[in-house]
Amino acid sequence: MSFDRINSAQPEPVTRLVHELSQLPGVGRRTAERLAFHLLKADREDAMRLSKAIADVKTDVRHCGVCWNLTDDDPCAICSDSRRDASMVMVVEQPKDLWNLEQTGMFHGVYHILMGRLSPLEGVGADSLTVNDLLRRISDPTKNAQGVKVTEVILALNPDMEGDSTGLFLADPLQSLGVNVTRLARGLPAGSQIEFANRAALADAIAGRRRMS
Amino acid sequence: MSFDRINSAQPEPVTRLVHELSQLPGVGRRTAERLAFHLLKADREDAMRLSKAIADVKTDVRHCGVCWNLTDDDPCAICSDSRRDASMVMVVEQPKDLWNLEQTGMFHGVYHILMGRLSPLEGVGADSLTVNDLLRRISDPTKNAQGVKVTEVILALNPDMEGDSTGLFLADPLQSLGVNVTRLARGLPAGSQIEFANRAALADAIAGRRRMS
Repeated sequence: MSFDRINSAQPEPVTRLVHELSQLPGVGRRTAERLAFHLLKADREDAMRLSKAIADVKTDVRHCGVCWNLTDDDPCAICSDSRRDASMVMVVEQPKDLWNLEQTGMFHGVYHILMGRLSPLEGVGADSLTVNDLLRRISDPTKNAQGVKVTEVILALNPDMEGDSTGLFLADPLQSLGVNVTRLARGLPAGSQIEFANRAALADAIAGRRRMS
Repeated sequence: MSFDRINSAQPEPVTRLVHELSQLPGVGRRTAERLAFHLLKADREDAMRLSKAIADVKTDVRHCGVCWNLTDDDPCAICSDSRRDASMVMVVEQPKDLWNLEQTGMFHGVYHILMGRLSPLEGVGADSLTVNDLLRRISDPTKNAQGVKVTEVILALNPDMEGDSTGLFLADPLQSLGVNVTRLARGLPAGSQIEFANRAALADAIAGRRRMS
């Protein structure tokens, strides 16, 4: 046992479950106990589905060898979809970003997951990211989805200081490889109110103003 | 699949894990996604320990045939401990109450878990509880821990309206069986301040005042 038996009246499997649940982010001992009790009371079948879902995710989910998306197939469903335009590569920080961008249904190219962003303060340099794989996809089309040559790289990094630095860091080597490098538009988010917009968003909105057509 | 694939870019095991996590109490979709990501990033070994802890709790934990405590042995460690005085039975609503009472180290008798309390509004009657098992332990010592005859039943129910009604409901049949029926003392909780005590606690404290010795 790597943890204290805090309560000898509690069966060992319950103590162990509370301990394991309390390792989850944002889950303290009280919450862990509440969750454990829920699982104790739950139908056996429901609890086993959760147990299996956790095991399956560790067994069946890995990174796509082309774009680093999380996937149960390699290459992932996006990279291997011949209806998608593999000449356009959208660079995102993490798989969650990809999933959210896909919800828009607006992009029909492929992706590249950096697996983070440059963060000198946290010791995250280019070597901790998948930058070299990205450059290789561009210089060697056989490394890209469906063997297609990349012509445009769209930087879809978070619009904050670290995302911007990462974008600046990438732009140069990408352009040297002869691809067009673009980044997502900035401005006021749809559905927001100017009254409550922050200064940076307003500044982006003014600088990026478009002629009415 | 009994749920919607909301995002076809997300691998099925991830979607399924998010779904199963979001079935937990107090866990919404956002939290479920955060937990799923944590598990995706976690060491395989750590995640598998959680998976196994959930499975084990459903496989190895059952109710004690004597007192209804949750246990991995039957009878439970408390009922089968011959150093405990099985003539005193403390009646609690749920296993969590027992575990908390045990932390005090003050009680050396045995327990009986009602598995709830009377709640006419929620349709919980005596038949949904383990009342009959409790009465049987008293009328037939062979049904009690270590075959000992019960002489005192201590009602350790929550000090609220439903706990009180449940206590009143139990007192009569218990007394008819010839046992002493007591309940936990009420008053000001240790470490509290009179300034902030609620009226009911103050009233209990006054009514239950004790002579200084």
